[in-house]
Amino acid sequence: MNGAQALIRTLVDAGVDVCFANPGTSEMHFVAALDDVPGMRGVLTLFEGVATGAADGWARMTGRPAATLLHLGPGLGNGLANLHNARRGRTPVVNVVGDHARSHKRLDAPLESDVDSLAGTVSGWVRRTLAPEDVGADAADAVAAAGRGQVATLVLPADVSWSDGAAVAGPPPPWSRPVPPQHRVDEVAAVLASGEPVVLLLGGDVLAGEDGQLAASAVAGATGVRLLAETFPARWVRGAGLPDIGKLPYPPEVAMKSLAGTRHLVLAGAVPPVHFFGYPGVPGTPVPADCSVHVLSEPGEDGVAALRALAELAAPGAAPQPVEASRPELPAGRLTPRAVSAVVGALLPERAVVVDEAITSGVGIAELTSGAPRHDWLSLTGGAIGDGLPMAVGAAVACPDRPVLVLQADGSAMYTLQALWTMAREQLDVTVVLYDNGSYAILQGELARVGATGGGERAGQLLDIGGPALDFVALATGTGVPATRAETVEELADQLRTAFREPGPHLVQAVLRPAG
Amino acid sequence: MNGAQALIRTLVDAGVDVCFANPGTSEMHFVAALDDVPGMRGVLTLFEGVATGAADGWARMTGRPAATLLHLGPGLGNGLANLHNARRGRTPVVNVVGDHARSHKRLDAPLESDVDSLAGTVSGWVRRTLAPEDVGADAADAVAAAGRGQVATLVLPADVSWSDGAAVAGPPPPWSRPVPPQHRVDEVAAVLASGEPVVLLLGGDVLAGEDGQLAASAVAGATGVRLLAETFPARWVRGAGLPDIGKLPYPPEVAMKSLAGTRHLVLAGAVPPVHFFGYPGVPGTPVPADCSVHVLSEPGEDGVAALRALAELAAPGAAPQPVEASRPELPAGRLTPRAVSAVVGALLPERAVVVDEAITSGVGIAELTSGAPRHDWLSLTGGAIGDGLPMAVGAAVACPDRPVLVLQADGSAMYTLQALWTMAREQLDVTVVLYDNGSYAILQGELARVGATGGGERAGQLLDIGGPALDFVALATGTGVPATRAETVEELADQLRTAFREPGPHLVQAVLRPAG
Repeated sequence: MNGAQALIRTLVDAGVDVCFANPGTSEMHFVAALDDVPGMRGVLTLFEGVATGAADGWARMTGRPAATLLHLGPGLGNGLANLHNARRGRTPVVNVVGDHARSHKRLDAPLESDVDSLAGTVSGWVRRTLAPEDVGADAADAVAAAGRGQVATLVLPADVSWSDGAAVAGPPPPWSRPVPPQHRVDEVAAVLASGEPVVLLLGGDVLAGEDGQLAASAVAGATGVRLLAETFPARWVRGAGLPDIGKLPYPPEVAMKSLAGTRHLVLAGAVPPVHFFGYPGVPGTPVPADCSVHVLSEPGEDGVAALRALAELAAPGAAPQPVEASRPELPAGRLTPRAVSAVVGALLPERAVVVDEAITSGVGIAELTSGAPRHDWLSLTGGAIGDGLPMAVGAAVACPDRPVLVLQADGSAMYTLQALWTMAREQLDVTVVLYDNGSYAILQGELARVGATGGGERAGQLLDIGGPALDFVALATGTGVPATRAETVEELADQLRTAFREPGPHLVQAVLRPAG
Repeated sequence: MNGAQALIRTLVDAGVDVCFANPGTSEMHFVAALDDVPGMRGVLTLFEGVATGAADGWARMTGRPAATLLHLGPGLGNGLANLHNARRGRTPVVNVVGDHARSHKRLDAPLESDVDSLAGTVSGWVRRTLAPEDVGADAADAVAAAGRGQVATLVLPADVSWSDGAAVAGPPPPWSRPVPPQHRVDEVAAVLASGEPVVLLLGGDVLAGEDGQLAASAVAGATGVRLLAETFPARWVRGAGLPDIGKLPYPPEVAMKSLAGTRHLVLAGAVPPVHFFGYPGVPGTPVPADCSVHVLSEPGEDGVAALRALAELAAPGAAPQPVEASRPELPAGRLTPRAVSAVVGALLPERAVVVDEAITSGVGIAELTSGAPRHDWLSLTGGAIGDGLPMAVGAAVACPDRPVLVLQADGSAMYTLQALWTMAREQLDVTVVLYDNGSYAILQGELARVGATGGGERAGQLLDIGGPALDFVALATGTGVPATRAETVEELADQLRTAFREPGPHLVQAVLRPAG
């Protein structure tokens, strides 16, 4: 058995049974071995950022790592931004990065680079397999490391792949999140009893399922603690029947207002909030200076168990307060960001997976979908734009029986547009709402927010992507994805209904700017 | 004066007067400062790989570094592959990578990452500016470091940009390549006089101009030494009036055959050749085991001076042997890779800049253009695909009075297709021949070459990009670039004539696969 075969069999035995791949010469034996190991599904992408973002989306929906197959340092580099998002979302990913054969490494061939250092910038675990007999065990270790909620990168020399003498390793032992100690629960219960204003900030595993949210809601009903969700949850199960939880807002001034007066901030699966960027004269965090921070559970721990324990102690017998099913009325006329949100709220299918890279265009979207049928919401965890379309690929591969809806801003869509081709190739049931505002709108706000003077013509040109206007209908069609253009609410609603009804991918370009 | 203003003024004073930019929040003061410093031209790209590839192309044509403006670690990551190519081609580049404000760095915000380590994997020089008063001097040092033929990365905290107290630094002192010592010239002259088979391998600065090639040709005429060019020259001035120099071939078996029997390999501006990849049972280099390698000049040295000295010593009074002007006849009928090469040879405009990312489709292209009007040829130096379209952006910005022709394979085109939009926005005179063979054709060859068994259906699917077929006419049109489709030689010739005649960008999709 050669190294590639042992690697793939080990991965499959450990539950890693899909590989988002962008192979090159050094990965040819891995590719060939796919024919020997039918349990592994290879999904081709046309750019590594699609492969890594798809792995992110797949793992968010399955809870298990997917593999990526990347070509040397430059391939890993192309995939780095979405690995950053995975790292920030604590998503498990197993990267297999092909490298030169061991004898070739010292020759400094054109594609030679420091793969290991590069991998270290996004990975919680990095190993270079040194011999074919190690590859099985190394792969099992990679899966184990990824399972802790991190990116694991296995660097695989080409000759380790092609050499015989490798063996399959058994799957790593099962692992589950540690339960936070009882004294933290006691401390938080005391805080809740203090009568002072408390915010309970939910994140990570708590938002990814129902039970933690329901327990938190029961606590809130009994104690008056205010619930907030972290700003960019990796996965958020929400909709009718679950509590209506507001998000901590992104803009620093709004986030500070949201937490003003809070005396105690309790974290359940979330990290202490900080602003996305530093701004002149603004504190780095929205947490008031006189607010104490209490950790009920850290992101890697079992926050659901901690919230259940808290509910037992601080709100015995209390019931959660679920939101009733409701949908906004369809508006009419011109498309605005809020009108798009209302259309989404009105039409969101049952059991949808929503991938949210709407950036500035998602006005009111949380509120307008809070009573929609139960759905999952995936956010841009690390701020590295270009995760939306790739994550949708991964989510759709993970959940072939569920509709995937991508809320996609135009500027960030252009980062990884190649994902559309994989949607067409695999006939994934993905609907893309492409918000076309013709600009890096967020940066126009940020330019003002950082207090940059000027904002003159030359600066403005670097924030304007409307000249020439991007025709996303043509771009999508060019990759094999059927696409339409909507300029009114009625057109958008009609086109979305069609997209939701028909199998396979669709893109709707929602034109938000005034006709020129 | 704030840090951003001092930085830009220092760069402009040092001759770095174009910046390929993909800014985010942390770069807003740099963007605003563009309105204060009219000498700097900001060129917006929609993806960082376009910015870095454009900087590569610009510097290859001007000999001076361009700046890039990138957004934190993920932005640098997206630009990494083409920085790898720049590094491998010894192209000077100055990256300005915005980072969090100094006070924000320790807060571990979502976009936080190890920018410095990441930069180190591709840069010969990395520095983080620690205070506004340092930024001018740091920028001048970056330009000086880049000028040695390397990537220099300056990490710029947002508050260093926005704070006052910065000062412009003067340009770095002029620098020129060191002349190799005379004893090397003497050694090579003795080798030439030995009567044994000698190959003189030219690369780097020698191919980038005329004088070194002419001196080498004179030596070849007088001594019988065989001239070869390195496989992937960063810039190669060629065409009628210059010597006809063959390239060392890419496929290992062909490269070994080309050098078989060579007893002495003399390097002028080139590094010792190695195969692109290691293969089972194949030596890592095409240089025969009994061949001695002699260095006349290393890549950073003045190879032209060394060749002039060699010509004086070994071939006094000898004349070079230039190739006469000649063009292939236009073929007819069905498009094949070789037919496309003949059309290019027949129609190549005067003073063209050819950007070559044809990969497997460039069959016969060197031979069929060797007598064409004088032109520059830019190759994929580091093997990280996706450099073709971005380099064309940079070359066209650098040489607005010259036509740019890109020979672009389809698989690699999809890596950085966003470059087309910048071509349209800046109305660059670029013609793209898009070779549409519907596959990663090179990998089909590599799968066999590495001896991978299988090649079954599932492996084949990972090398096939034809399902669905990419419609590059739609893709180009969607970015604002006029595009046409050619299925015969006659159509290709007509469409290229139009593209060369009209200003602004054009794309021609040359369909190479049999109609399905």
